[in-house]
Amino acid sequence: MKQSSLFSKTRKDVSAESDSINHRLLVKGGFISQLMSGVYTYLPLGLRVLKKIENIIREEMEKIGGQEILMPALHPKENWEVTGRWDTMDDLYKFKSHYTKIELALGPTHEEVVVPLAKQFIHSYKDLPKNLYQIQVKFRDEMRAKSGVLRGREFLMKDLYSFNATEKDLDDYYDAMINVYNNIYKRAGIGSKTYLTFASGGSFSKYSHEFQTETPAGEDIIYLCSKCKIAVNKEIIEEQKNCPKCGNEELKEVKAIEVGNIFKLKTKFSDAFNLTFTDKAGKEHLVQMGCYGIGISRLLGTIVEINHDENGIIWPKEVAPFDIHLLSLSADEKSNKIYETLKNAGFDVLLDDRDETAGTKFKDADLIGIPIRLIISQKLERTGNIEVKERLESESLIINEKDLISHLKRP
Amino acid sequence: MKQSSLFSKTRKDVSAESDSINHRLLVKGGFISQLMSGVYTYLPLGLRVLKKIENIIREEMEKIGGQEILMPALHPKENWEVTGRWDTMDDLYKFKSHYTKIELALGPTHEEVVVPLAKQFIHSYKDLPKNLYQIQVKFRDEMRAKSGVLRGREFLMKDLYSFNATEKDLDDYYDAMINVYNNIYKRAGIGSKTYLTFASGGSFSKYSHEFQTETPAGEDIIYLCSKCKIAVNKEIIEEQKNCPKCGNEELKEVKAIEVGNIFKLKTKFSDAFNLTFTDKAGKEHLVQMGCYGIGISRLLGTIVEINHDENGIIWPKEVAPFDIHLLSLSADEKSNKIYETLKNAGFDVLLDDRDETAGTKFKDADLIGIPIRLIISQKLERTGNIEVKERLESESLIINEKDLISHLKRP
Repeated sequence: MKQSSLFSKTRKDVSAESDSINHRLLVKGGFISQLMSGVYTYLPLGLRVLKKIENIIREEMEKIGGQEILMPALHPKENWEVTGRWDTMDDLYKFKSHYTKIELALGPTHEEVVVPLAKQFIHSYKDLPKNLYQIQVKFRDEMRAKSGVLRGREFLMKDLYSFNATEKDLDDYYDAMINVYNNIYKRAGIGSKTYLTFASGGSFSKYSHEFQTETPAGEDIIYLCSKCKIAVNKEIIEEQKNCPKCGNEELKEVKAIEVGNIFKLKTKFSDAFNLTFTDKAGKEHLVQMGCYGIGISRLLGTIVEINHDENGIIWPKEVAPFDIHLLSLSADEKSNKIYETLKNAGFDVLLDDRDETAGTKFKDADLIGIPIRLIISQKLERTGNIEVKERLESESLIINEKDLISHLKRP
Repeated sequence: MKQSSLFSKTRKDVSAESDSINHRLLVKGGFISQLMSGVYTYLPLGLRVLKKIENIIREEMEKIGGQEILMPALHPKENWEVTGRWDTMDDLYKFKSHYTKIELALGPTHEEVVVPLAKQFIHSYKDLPKNLYQIQVKFRDEMRAKSGVLRGREFLMKDLYSFNATEKDLDDYYDAMINVYNNIYKRAGIGSKTYLTFASGGSFSKYSHEFQTETPAGEDIIYLCSKCKIAVNKEIIEEQKNCPKCGNEELKEVKAIEVGNIFKLKTKFSDAFNLTFTDKAGKEHLVQMGCYGIGISRLLGTIVEINHDENGIIWPKEVAPFDIHLLSLSADEKSNKIYETLKNAGFDVLLDDRDETAGTKFKDADLIGIPIRLIISQKLERTGNIEVKERLESESLIINEKDLISHLKRP
């Protein structure tokens, strides 16, 4: 894409509301625009990152037998009355159709929809296991939306619901999901700071688990074991003074943001909706369920909190809006040629062909944070050499044009 | 994908509410599930079709300079007061946050969001033209939702907004969009029955245009010219008794469903929000706008209305959930081998490996409607021959296994 035609521009003015690094850098870089508190538009650059994250998640969910569906945001009151959550869930947006007078909620989670749906197709042990997920917009009537895209009123989530015949099958799937989640955070560039965290399991399970990313921007406190790299959250530390995995009592208190949670629902919701299956002997049982969430827009914000410096964002390779930022310094013809060559070689390229000074282009490139920057100047044009700078490095390399593709494609 | 593990199954029971062919076939085939009137879940098969349609639309929008963004569904009341539509738009879902008491609407369209957004980045003639689009869920408080996914309360739409400096530029872009829309309907398999239809342009333009697909399921009446294949809608026929393009007065009255509309907004919304740009001479002008919508879930329903027979759906190739339906009739080993070969050759394949009779498999395959069906039976296994049947054809072909890929890849 050519930057001269890109809708967004980098911005100097960021509203006073920008209490957080992710909000400030994402707005300044032209990734998002705030419509109101907790509600954002994703601009072309931001949407590209969201889609990269979505694709990582899709690939990982498919590996573990997930089948993608798309459930609605509008939910009928009846379904939420079945579980009792119509009255107990404070952050449910509730309203009435002015025509039909039907009472509706905007889904903040989808147990109330997915369990009745599963009842339509799950009847026998032969129909199990099943794992359904969606990537879909969710709504929460938050008292205070804050921290940029870390806590929104409208946000994108991946939620997967597992359906198993036995607790043992649920346990096995749950354990496999922990590995899948770790892989997602690793690919998204926050693996080294993201910890499996023991949390309360509610009335049905001993524990649930959160995935918490250590950052000063976090609203949660976790207690981290440096030995086994496992953490416990506040609820658990009050009952239990050590790490549940290794027994270590010297835990470090750190601020963190929850980037995922997994929960064994067991029969809580299958009981509410009477979701059962018959076993080989014809006996009826409740289905064992689990739920597995990742806030995708929150993950995007967390990536920025973890990967930035004083000049801007440093996108991890797999989620960067483009692979390469090609800066043309008064060398349009040469730059266009290299732009086409790179695109033909399969790279996503942003070509800065704007009529701006070199200083502005460098500054904007740092802010936008694409991993690799190529600089084509008049001087380099004469020599056939191109300056290659990785966003993470302070020094640049000089590569001859004929070696460029092989240099960029090296592992 | 293996059909034995697919979440959905074909269904015999379809609710009494199923007044329409698309609802009945999509529910029976396991593509969608109704949560409440006008609100549907897209099951794995249905979501695959939605994504194929989305990708066609994305490709076509990118060709015409569209930049994809993602705007929120939650809109603040203020924006809708600026245009006066808070009070005049009957099908707006409106409600209040119970914490903040902020009044909100669920977006049925996005002029109220995209114009203030454009104000942040469009200031000079150098910033024009710009074309922004999104593929996003919309909400309408319909008095009566009906006709399956043709008229929903929650539905997926593509909406593009164009921003130009002059009326001439707007006119040119609008004309180019007509070609792009025709191409989309052609690729989606409804091109031969979809007509450009003259409609009222409101207070600012003489005409707007709808794209109407002729079908008995349609809720609209259009007047079709058999000479130039252009139509006019009811509003226009009352003012003007002929075809605006060729002057023909013998127009045929047919039922149709609106699968898209394009509208020159001119300065209606840029005026409301004071979206201006300065020209080369430093003079300020209002930006010229157009909007261009396609209901994606409605398009899916229309494709089914147009492409089916008494046995089920007949998916057009580019939007089919899978390229090939591979039916294994007690020949699992051979079928698995061919399944892998086809996948490696780049085909999307649904393998019917269920423990069902041949009759059930044929019936379900007709209902699901994948364009090409391959039948692997014990008999054919001995000869190396495979029965290939296209969903549209009544006769099948016998192809030797070694010629299969080249047969399937022929243009």
